[in-house]
Amino acid sequence: MPTDLPNERALRKPGTLELDPTGEGIAIDETPRLIASNKVEGTAVYDRTGRHLGAVHNFMVDKVSGQAAYAVLAFGGFLGLGETHHPLPWKALTYSTELGGYVVDIDPGLLAGAPSHGAGEDGFADPSYRARIETFYGSRAPTA
Amino acid sequence: MPTDLPNERALRKPGTLELDPTGEGIAIDETPRLIASNKVEGTAVYDRTGRHLGAVHNFMVDKVSGQAAYAVLAFGGFLGLGETHHPLPWKALTYSTELGGYVVDIDPGLLAGAPSHGAGEDGFADPSYRARIETFYGSRAPTA
Repeated sequence: MPTDLPNERALRKPGTLELDPTGEGIAIDETPRLIASNKVEGTAVYDRTGRHLGAVHNFMVDKVSGQAAYAVLAFGGFLGLGETHHPLPWKALTYSTELGGYVVDIDPGLLAGAPSHGAGEDGFADPSYRARIETFYGSRAPTA
Repeated sequence: MPTDLPNERALRKPGTLELDPTGEGIAIDETPRLIASNKVEGTAVYDRTGRHLGAVHNFMVDKVSGQAAYAVLAFGGFLGLGETHHPLPWKALTYSTELGGYVVDIDPGLLAGAPSHGAGEDGFADPSYRARIETFYGSRAPTA
């Protein structure tokens, strides 16, 4: 019977962040509340059913306020080939301490058609990119 | 005569961010308002007189809100030797579009005595670290 509950075994993928479960003081660069920017980069991303979608490539920060505006998700690809980067409003992501990653509460089919750019491209160099993202995600877009 | 005005020539150090001044569409991964997280890492830091102090190593982000809480500044050192990492409340930094970097409005002598950790250490693994930073910077500390 299908269920929306995440499967614990399936979610423990390699690369999933662990909050120093052994307590041996390994360098985690994070606390229960804070995480280093360079650790967000690479954090796994799941859909609402706990299925692994991809990872955070980086995130776009408001220079003045320090508020993260968009998480740039990397989907697909192998060794960088065919990988696409999808900027999502930061507010569309929820951090799950159980999963040790971000959950995106958006239909993966919708994500596939969202504004995106190639892994080697700089989407935000296009002045209209941000507006297209905000239009696409509608009320999910940050107001800043 | 000494002056507090930044010296234009002195401030144009290598590594200073440039907002695509040639307009040739080089990958800048930033807009006038947004910057990619992995570009903040490495951005130059100046004191209020425009003197180059160091660079942003990374920054600590609130996992839930996406708000940058601390910028971890890297001071001194050569090829990683002797470099110290100083976490500063994000609000203590001002982004200067003229300098293309962050300005820290704190006396460098005060910074030298602030909570810090070695470049290879994970200061935030110590549960008391955040409290010590907040105590040190007092009212500059974020309330989150």
